[in-house]
Amino acid sequence: MPLIRIDIFRGRDERSVQAIADAVHKGVVEVLKIPERDRFQVVTQHDPGEIIALDAGLGFERSVTGVVIVQIFTQVGRSTDTKQQVYRALARRLGAVGVSGNDLFISYIENSAADWSFAEGRAQYVEGLLPVPGRHD
Amino acid sequence: MPLIRIDIFRGRDERSVQAIADAVHKGVVEVLKIPERDRFQVVTQHDPGEIIALDAGLGFERSVTGVVIVQIFTQVGRSTDTKQQVYRALARRLGAVGVSGNDLFISYIENSAADWSFAEGRAQYVEGLLPVPGRHD
Amino acid sequence: MPLIRIDIFRGRDERSVQAIADAVHKGVVEVLKIPERDRFQVVTQHDPGEIIALDAGLGFERSVTGVVIVQIFTQVGRSTDTKQQVYRALARRLGAVGVSGNDLFISYIENSAADWSFAEGRAQYVEGLLPVPGRHD
Repeated sequence: MPLIRIDIFRGRDERSVQAIADAVHKGVVEVLKIPERDRFQVVTQHDPGEIIALDAGLGFERSVTGVVIVQIFTQVGRSTDTKQQVYRALARRLGAVGVSGNDLFISYIENSAADWSFAEGRAQYVEGLLPVPGRHD
Repeated sequence: MPLIRIDIFRGRDERSVQAIADAVHKGVVEVLKIPERDRFQVVTQHDPGEIIALDAGLGFERSVTGVVIVQIFTQVGRSTDTKQQVYRALARRLGAVGVSGNDLFISYIENSAADWSFAEGRAQYVEGLLPVPGRHD
Repeated sequence: MPLIRIDIFRGRDERSVQAIADAVHKGVVEVLKIPERDRFQVVTQHDPGEIIALDAGLGFERSVTGVVIVQIFTQVGRSTDTKQQVYRALARRLGAVGVSGNDLFISYIENSAADWSFAEGRAQYVEGLLPVPGRHD
């Protein structure tokens, strides 16, 4: 936890894709204070036309092929301020690997501690095998 | 917002894929009264066997290769009636581009205004850069 | 319902992919007592580097290429105990088709009866065309 989906267009080499995933992870670790090894990411690379991300009327320009869609599934409990810190950290970290802030779209979805199984079909938070993340707001 | 995932089988040309994405967007805009440029869609095309969508016991026939899975992630606050209007609009709009109603599966997931960043790592609804969508039920 | 996303690495033959999807479905049917034909699954196969799933600090080893990410979207109302039974059933059923328990990651996300349309743009639970799943805890 979190489970993070990253959707991008094809065309980057494997190292650049890895750099994007790394940047997202670092941003999340930095703000949410989760362990380095609490990393669960699924990247899907898309053909032309498969990602459409306009400006929501804000009036900025996206680069089209550079767009990075990040969807964060994580446990409920973070404050709005913490979420804002996550978004800013992702923009900063991704900026450092060449992703423009205008190309970054983030959506955040919440569930509960009982909604996670990291291995073996165990519910590690419920069974006390992992500490339930508290509020670090 | 919303972020919409569309999962279909490979085999359509790029124009037909675009027509499906356009139809979904038009249906959502029509009912939810969101701006035309509030468009965030991720299409993933699948190989044979990768999408399985049966009839839930309802007794209708799907075409198998024509199935369209739509997953809508959007802000909480729409009534059941509005959701039903969305589903009907999607069926009608997709029907107009050749997707059978029997091939359409929709799932809807809700989050909050603080859960969105459209660019630059800003939380545009929280920061007042975009009006928080009200209830248009 | 549920809608289940399964993310795996490319490299398995179509029959093995099907066996994984079947195992997940059987586990869910067994515990949630849903109809056999209440099956909605989207499998996405990934290139090297596209899935990163570490151990969350638990100290076990994943096989890297064998990792199976299961994301379950379903109606709210199941108890923690029922969720735990689902995770265990998935581990057991997937184990029987060669997926190590250490390679299984599960995340569970809840929505409501009004959030589903199985076909034709109808909201079958709301319209009374399907019984709303009760609590079978």
